[in-house]
Amino acid sequence: MTELGVVHRSIERAAPEAVEALSHFGVATVHEAQGRTGLLRPYVRPIYPQAKLCGTAVTVLLQPGDNWMFHVAAEQIRPGDVVVAGCTTESEDGFFGELLATSFRARGAAGLIIDGGCRDVAELAEMDFPVFSRSINAKGTVKATLGSVNVPVTVANALVNPGDVVVADADGVVVVPRESAAQVAEASRLREENEESKRARFRDGELGLDMYKMREKLATAGLRYVD
Amino acid sequence: MTELGVVHRSIERAAPEAVEALSHFGVATVHEAQGRTGLLRPYVRPIYPQAKLCGTAVTVLLQPGDNWMFHVAAEQIRPGDVVVAGCTTESEDGFFGELLATSFRARGAAGLIIDGGCRDVAELAEMDFPVFSRSINAKGTVKATLGSVNVPVTVANALVNPGDVVVADADGVVVVPRESAAQVAEASRLREENEESKRARFRDGELGLDMYKMREKLATAGLRYVD
Amino acid sequence: MTELGVVHRSIERAAPEAVEALSHFGVATVHEAQGRTGLLRPYVRPIYPQAKLCGTAVTVLLQPGDNWMFHVAAEQIRPGDVVVAGCTTESEDGFFGELLATSFRARGAAGLIIDGGCRDVAELAEMDFPVFSRSINAKGTVKATLGSVNVPVTVANALVNPGDVVVADADGVVVVPRESAAQVAEASRLREENEESKRARFRDGELGLDMYKMREKLATAGLRYVD
Amino acid sequence: MTELGVVHRSIERAAPEAVEALSHFGVATVHEAQGRTGLLRPYVRPIYPQAKLCGTAVTVLLQPGDNWMFHVAAEQIRPGDVVVAGCTTESEDGFFGELLATSFRARGAAGLIIDGGCRDVAELAEMDFPVFSRSINAKGTVKATLGSVNVPVTVANALVNPGDVVVADADGVVVVPRESAAQVAEASRLREENEESKRARFRDGELGLDMYKMREKLATAGLRYVD
Amino acid sequence: MTELGVVHRSIERAAPEAVEALSHFGVATVHEAQGRTGLLRPYVRPIYPQAKLCGTAVTVLLQPGDNWMFHVAAEQIRPGDVVVAGCTTESEDGFFGELLATSFRARGAAGLIIDGGCRDVAELAEMDFPVFSRSINAKGTVKATLGSVNVPVTVANALVNPGDVVVADADGVVVVPRESAAQVAEASRLREENEESKRARFRDGELGLDMYKMREKLATAGLRYVD
Amino acid sequence: MTELGVVHRSIERAAPEAVEALSHFGVATVHEAQGRTGLLRPYVRPIYPQAKLCGTAVTVLLQPGDNWMFHVAAEQIRPGDVVVAGCTTESEDGFFGELLATSFRARGAAGLIIDGGCRDVAELAEMDFPVFSRSINAKGTVKATLGSVNVPVTVANALVNPGDVVVADADGVVVVPRESAAQVAEASRLREENEESKRARFRDGELGLDMYKMREKLATAGLRYVD
Repeated sequence: MTELGVVHRSIERAAPEAVEALSHFGVATVHEAQGRTGLLRPYVRPIYPQAKLCGTAVTVLLQPGDNWMFHVAAEQIRPGDVVVAGCTTESEDGFFGELLATSFRARGAAGLIIDGGCRDVAELAEMDFPVFSRSINAKGTVKATLGSVNVPVTVANALVNPGDVVVADADGVVVVPRESAAQVAEASRLREENEESKRARFRDGELGLDMYKMREKLATAGLRYVD
Repeated sequence: MTELGVVHRSIERAAPEAVEALSHFGVATVHEAQGRTGLLRPYVRPIYPQAKLCGTAVTVLLQPGDNWMFHVAAEQIRPGDVVVAGCTTESEDGFFGELLATSFRARGAAGLIIDGGCRDVAELAEMDFPVFSRSINAKGTVKATLGSVNVPVTVANALVNPGDVVVADADGVVVVPRESAAQVAEASRLREENEESKRARFRDGELGLDMYKMREKLATAGLRYVD
Repeated sequence: MTELGVVHRSIERAAPEAVEALSHFGVATVHEAQGRTGLLRPYVRPIYPQAKLCGTAVTVLLQPGDNWMFHVAAEQIRPGDVVVAGCTTESEDGFFGELLATSFRARGAAGLIIDGGCRDVAELAEMDFPVFSRSINAKGTVKATLGSVNVPVTVANALVNPGDVVVADADGVVVVPRESAAQVAEASRLREENEESKRARFRDGELGLDMYKMREKLATAGLRYVD
Repeated sequence: MTELGVVHRSIERAAPEAVEALSHFGVATVHEAQGRTGLLRPYVRPIYPQAKLCGTAVTVLLQPGDNWMFHVAAEQIRPGDVVVAGCTTESEDGFFGELLATSFRARGAAGLIIDGGCRDVAELAEMDFPVFSRSINAKGTVKATLGSVNVPVTVANALVNPGDVVVADADGVVVVPRESAAQVAEASRLREENEESKRARFRDGELGLDMYKMREKLATAGLRYVD
Repeated sequence: MTELGVVHRSIERAAPEAVEALSHFGVATVHEAQGRTGLLRPYVRPIYPQAKLCGTAVTVLLQPGDNWMFHVAAEQIRPGDVVVAGCTTESEDGFFGELLATSFRARGAAGLIIDGGCRDVAELAEMDFPVFSRSINAKGTVKATLGSVNVPVTVANALVNPGDVVVADADGVVVVPRESAAQVAEASRLREENEESKRARFRDGELGLDMYKMREKLATAGLRYVD
Repeated sequence: MTELGVVHRSIERAAPEAVEALSHFGVATVHEAQGRTGLLRPYVRPIYPQAKLCGTAVTVLLQPGDNWMFHVAAEQIRPGDVVVAGCTTESEDGFFGELLATSFRARGAAGLIIDGGCRDVAELAEMDFPVFSRSINAKGTVKATLGSVNVPVTVANALVNPGDVVVADADGVVVVPRESAAQVAEASRLREENEESKRARFRDGELGLDMYKMREKLATAGLRYVD
């Protein structure tokens, strides 16, 4: 059960080499490489087109319209961390802006994933501080109710544990469990290699029907061609 | 990481007495009693007004537009179980209808929670087989791609583990972790007792301002009265 | 500008005779009778099919996930009032349930309109306490941040002033300004009379094309009939 | 191309026997029986729980916030017809209410399908005039701009031609092309017969895994059982 | 009725000169020029700001979460074609990415319109391969269930026949029936000429009230000016 | 009550110095400076990333799918005004395009806020005519039904009076009542000054926990740290 009012100070982060290895791949590749799991729902979008990030999760559980826990979380950030924030309910207020981004960056944060709203988006783009949020909203928040830091959280229907790796780019956000980070990085590399050869063959005009030997399977499934 | 293509046959279910105890309370009460956690997002709604259920979760991870795993899950159902189904993506097709309900009921199922669509809703209401779904949709599904049974799933942004207790009524759906079921049932009981006395005082015209001694706190917060 | 942290104790309510007169008409009629104005956006829906109400507005401005102001509002309710609650942001939490309903009813309230969520809906239906809300949600709220009572509020995109008349039924919710309540009631009566004669003619098979003399206007607009 | 400003007076309707035959089946069955085609998007919902209908389509193309064409359509209705209305854009206003229903019923209409809003829903339920709409909305409409009657229209992403059969119930709405109505009715009958025997076997506790001989196919697909 | 499991190899495409002529106009102009018909619902959006296209439709009917038919469609593409994909249900998975785009481009495709999701959007923008989709989503798809190619499809509530012309830009997507392509291109040209003179007059400060001679019509409609 | 069919020609605008002063601040700052009030719902978004504006409101009440009142409004525009348009219902049609923008600009307009759709967005971005709308939609509108100009309107759930100041940027849209414009500008200036010093301290690594002296309050609220 998700606990409220707790901060876990000692979390185990994915190995730096695994994080570095994963940072070379896009979200679609990583998601495929780990068996099509770990994607956040696609309503979490980058606040500016070039936003991308890869790092280890410091998780936050927010209360609606209340960003108190972000200040608690700031102290737990280590260089390379990504703050990943869920909320106890659907709330699109502007929990995060450029002052907090300045603080998070000073602690070494690589960015923010939030199942909530974000503001100061022009300033954040200017700073190149990547944020992936469910909305852009100037609405301010209060500091009145406890949530938690570094507990497991569900964010846009994905479970994120503290220390997991989070990869985000223009295609969305994917979480890779800490334990499997190295293995997923390797699977991503193999997938990309494999895709490169396919890409060349597609470019030369070869059809997927032939490359993937689909014609027989389609015929068996009953596909009819009509002239 | 959520696994695809796996069925766990041996799961530990919450104690029957705890389930029975929880069945006497509404979703709002249970959610409060466990510290305002465990609620599914409110888009999961009963398909008929009187639908309600309480039981232990057999979890299913579905693929979009594909209900193959429901047939696999049927074999794992024991009397009193509730099938709780998430999906690897947002999909509102009619994964479930009265034939599957007949099968699930024959196995002893108490109902279904699904982050997807349901059909045959008139027949299901007639059978009084409670379903809580994100949509009502006649669209049929295929049986082509593996998901999983009895793995942890996120359903409408809540994490559900096999064997957890699920309580659902007109107010929504809440999941109670297996380990804390007895304790949450007891906390629910205390909460209801407490509410009964408040209810009587409210009925007699006492104000919450006085009952909860809010006037001073409101004044401190700066509330101004203007005539 | 909407003020936060203020309670207006002295408000002028629409005349009781005007309220009584309006209570005989449906929302669609009243909305037409006042020139197609005053409707709330249609996402505000009754929590049970038979819910309907007509009364004078005690307005509340809520903060997200916070129902503190409902307790403040309770003290301002007089018999026949309807509590009308907007929120400073979009928030679907369960701000209201049967305990508050018991308190509001003890004060004489006729119901609630809320641009937010409601819970205990089975109990509220049982009590026949009419609520029109944007969602049904078991999620509890805190009591931490000031809003206001009896200030002008926008609710589902409609402006409501304290003392205005609110009429709600299965078709939605409409607000009638205090000053024009008597006149709108009279216009509603005339409209209904007029509709009764039309209804009889339609029942006898007369076409709207003839009743409203539309044929020439349609031809002028260019309507072509093809056999 | 959809024409605006045209009324086709001579349309060919599906054979009455085919319509009668289809009226015995639910939407899910009919949709399956015609190869999982013809369903409207599931946001079109009945305005009261028991609403259902089956009849031949008189199509209407509406303009946003304008119900002029309903009066034109009324003249084209023959007993057993269902008015099926699309709109040139997304519009949720209350295009239809009980006066028009009275007129349509006097002409013999069996109900209405509308990709728009409906009002007077309590009165329509009282009359048992089935309407399937995208919203309930008291907002009135004008009579100012031409649409069309009995042209092909897309309604909730389904193409409906005048004279097609429309079947609607609590599961949604499906359109059956005029030419294939008899054949789809027969396929529906066969499907229902087939389901009856399955239902009995499910009731007796047989698993779909065995009934549909899925175990081998699941194993081939790689399903693993873990104890 | 839409057929599943069929590929039509011989389709008649709009005349190349008509396509070329239409390519000079924006979506708003073309939509107006054909009498305000043919627009897709506005939720279909370009995946990058500069995306635009004009070409002849090769249509695809997809199954949810399944992109098998795109490989079948690739073989049917001729230079200048636009692939236009509907889905049998609402599905926002990432049906399309840069490998398929490489294949489609090698066949001469001018872009893609899809009532579903798209991924690899940074790479597609880099390639300048225009895609108009309902969502951006990294979620991968399977290849398991037959749809169709070159049958009539409804896409975002618009009917598209194979060989029709599709025009798309930052304002949305419009389909022009094959038979009327030349005529709509000419009407678009006339409309643009007409607009150029209006634009100059507006720039000089002339009011639409005077240019369109609206004052009298407004007065007749009852417009009152208050000082 | 909102009047239909009325144009108020004499409105009092906020003082030019106050407007100029407000133009130096972002939406989030202004919204905070006036006590977190006045924000429009966040679904109103800029049609291009750099769009921003600050000016005095000329208000318009539109009818669905009808932009007639924009031509009436044009005559009322004075240099520095922002046209602010609500609609009597939810309507996402393309009420506004580059011809109207040319006219509005010729009259001195600084931009448009609309709770509806906009088209010609590429041309508007090219002109740098800032528009904040709820959708982008090529769908054209008619000129048939009266709305009003310079009456109070609710726009995306915010009340806007003619002559109020409207500030809009990438974070959203906020309205400042005419009477308080100077005071809100001054409060905005103080807030920005205050933030500048905080920004520097955050940049140097100071934590919000210390800067805002939160540690004790968090402990009192019950926050537990676990190692």
